[in-house]
Amino acid sequence: MSAIITLTTDFGTQDAYVGAMKGVILSLCPDARIVDVSHAIAPQDIMECSFVLRDAAWYFPAGAIHLAVVDPGVGTDRRPVALRCGEHFFTGPDNGIFPLILDGTAPDVCVCLDRPEFWRSATPSRTFHGRDIFAAVAAHLANGVPIERLGSAIEELTPMKWALPIMDDQGVQGWVVHIDRFGNCITNISREMVEERQAGRPIKCFAGNTILEGIRHTYASVETGEPLLQYNSSNLLEVAVNSGNAAELLGIRKGNPVNILFS
Amino acid sequence: MSAIITLTTDFGTQDAYVGAMKGVILSLCPDARIVDVSHAIAPQDIMECSFVLRDAAWYFPAGAIHLAVVDPGVGTDRRPVALRCGEHFFTGPDNGIFPLILDGTAPDVCVCLDRPEFWRSATPSRTFHGRDIFAAVAAHLANGVPIERLGSAIEELTPMKWALPIMDDQGVQGWVVHIDRFGNCITNISREMVEERQAGRPIKCFAGNTILEGIRHTYASVETGEPLLQYNSSNLLEVAVNSGNAAELLGIRKGNPVNILFS
Amino acid sequence: MSAIITLTTDFGTQDAYVGAMKGVILSLCPDARIVDVSHAIAPQDIMECSFVLRDAAWYFPAGAIHLAVVDPGVGTDRRPVALRCGEHFFTGPDNGIFPLILDGTAPDVCVCLDRPEFWRSATPSRTFHGRDIFAAVAAHLANGVPIERLGSAIEELTPMKWALPIMDDQGVQGWVVHIDRFGNCITNISREMVEERQAGRPIKCFAGNTILEGIRHTYASVETGEPLLQYNSSNLLEVAVNSGNAAELLGIRKGNPVNILFS
Repeated sequence: MSAIITLTTDFGTQDAYVGAMKGVILSLCPDARIVDVSHAIAPQDIMECSFVLRDAAWYFPAGAIHLAVVDPGVGTDRRPVALRCGEHFFTGPDNGIFPLILDGTAPDVCVCLDRPEFWRSATPSRTFHGRDIFAAVAAHLANGVPIERLGSAIEELTPMKWALPIMDDQGVQGWVVHIDRFGNCITNISREMVEERQAGRPIKCFAGNTILEGIRHTYASVETGEPLLQYNSSNLLEVAVNSGNAAELLGIRKGNPVNILFS
Repeated sequence: MSAIITLTTDFGTQDAYVGAMKGVILSLCPDARIVDVSHAIAPQDIMECSFVLRDAAWYFPAGAIHLAVVDPGVGTDRRPVALRCGEHFFTGPDNGIFPLILDGTAPDVCVCLDRPEFWRSATPSRTFHGRDIFAAVAAHLANGVPIERLGSAIEELTPMKWALPIMDDQGVQGWVVHIDRFGNCITNISREMVEERQAGRPIKCFAGNTILEGIRHTYASVETGEPLLQYNSSNLLEVAVNSGNAAELLGIRKGNPVNILFS
Repeated sequence: MSAIITLTTDFGTQDAYVGAMKGVILSLCPDARIVDVSHAIAPQDIMECSFVLRDAAWYFPAGAIHLAVVDPGVGTDRRPVALRCGEHFFTGPDNGIFPLILDGTAPDVCVCLDRPEFWRSATPSRTFHGRDIFAAVAAHLANGVPIERLGSAIEELTPMKWALPIMDDQGVQGWVVHIDRFGNCITNISREMVEERQAGRPIKCFAGNTILEGIRHTYASVETGEPLLQYNSSNLLEVAVNSGNAAELLGIRKGNPVNILFS
């Protein structure tokens, strides 16, 4: 079975960038199977890239190669890297994307892509390492080149951490880390954080212009147009509206606080 | 030849939803060939999903598996289903999508997806059956599992019908069911409805802020910026503007009436 | 290895058009590997289609078939064509797209697609040759049908040329030909045009509401939010803002002049 290479970028699809990367991959590894995850990451939003790829990557089969390119520091001395975590491979800039995706886990192997023989050209563009380094490296991985050969081992990735909710016995304060296409407001409060502290007490939640009571299991558990609180498909608390756009209707934006009180 | 799985959803591509579904499919059926039809269906617009997939699905080769996920009722007791129509397979929620796609034809086989051994997990998320049920079922179909094994046979899908135009000897009144990326306004009036009644008489058409005469064969049959009436590539009457956006220029929105008079 | 067919269109993805084309291709050539380059070309913008495909096509391996459909003249007597340039194939309308992509190079083979036995149907829709002619022809090329069999040889494509910058010993005046997703303003001034004339003199550049001095090598060579001038990954001069949107911040639109002075 030929290798899978997934693509997650902030390139959009109105320019040639994504096409050029796909061309480079298929030139070096003609039977690679390229899978678009997203090219609609907000421009230069490293955290959004991590959030999206973290929720998609692990569903792919062992051996998948995940290319993540949100790269505001392209052309500076930020390192290009490739890593292996279990049976998944990742490549992209060392700007914080990967520690967030791995969420604290250390990669099994991590290399700095400092060997030009594995790039598309020994003199890569200063503005498009996605095409000239990362696409080529993903193709070499797909061809079975051992990751250790692609560059010098490095000890640690540039760290970046998700800001964590604040918790005590009375409640949890987190915030909205992603608003999806439907306007669902996804927080950084996990099911575990709530259930460990709730102890059977009723829940009140302050979010945007509303107060929500209790945690539901489906959108349709409230009337059309009414807001609700539920765990999303990744077990993060989300504020939603049945058949409506919660972000718009409740005046919620990315970064806004969400407060859970046990009472 | 490995099986083709087409995807039509309202998920957009800025979130992890599409990537997660692709990962589940490839984990269960590593050689499936995934084809994106559209992830830009308007959120929760079941009719638009049917309209788009109906116009794309039948061009695929025999054996294609079409996954359609616009699922406002996810988590309620609306049934997850899979069906076979001739040599095409479909899977998604039983919320009206499929009767519209089939346009009155009964499926040859129809099952309720009530066997958790064919899901991704026996305890699916309440909010993301696309990933936890439909992607897994599509992969099993691609692997050659007979559709009859995937669930209990059901007699009838939840019905939903396109509203039909009103017709008599003097004319046809229909309405705009889709506005495409170019601003072309596609109606539910078919070529057949017009030609059966026209009997050589000239045509007048009232649409938005204009009156159109006659049916053209190409955009370029009128001057740049001028409106025209023609049959689109699916033989539905459409109001268009040569090199322009008819919806904007003529003030037409989805759902607006279009009146044909024979005079 | 099965053939690669790339798709570049102005169809968007909210309609059935792209899906129908993919279905036709896979029905005629079940093992074709379809690669989306872009479906987000501005409606009917032939130059943008050429600009994007020109920057992506040549990265694909020999034998790739590039389908380009931006087709405002569909249904008129503009010719449908297929061409071979070196080891790359192209098909689409003869409306100027291809001379721009080839940028002055004559194709090795060029045919008018006047043989209905290679179309999807002998009576194609008047509004959708992408599905009924070009997708079918791309599939036949992928199946190994010699391009010469697909239609009558033609001598010359309908010409279209990029407007060229004006240059003398004192400077270069060009203009913005593309604004990318990040707001980078890409001009038609090449690295070569500047370097041949500069002779060590300092550079001043007038663009939008600003004056820029010198040519940088990376976005990060100026402070966040500051504008800069650099060569992009295709060696065209671009006006950018470090971590910002140059088009918005500097008031630049496609078609605006950019002036380089050597002083």
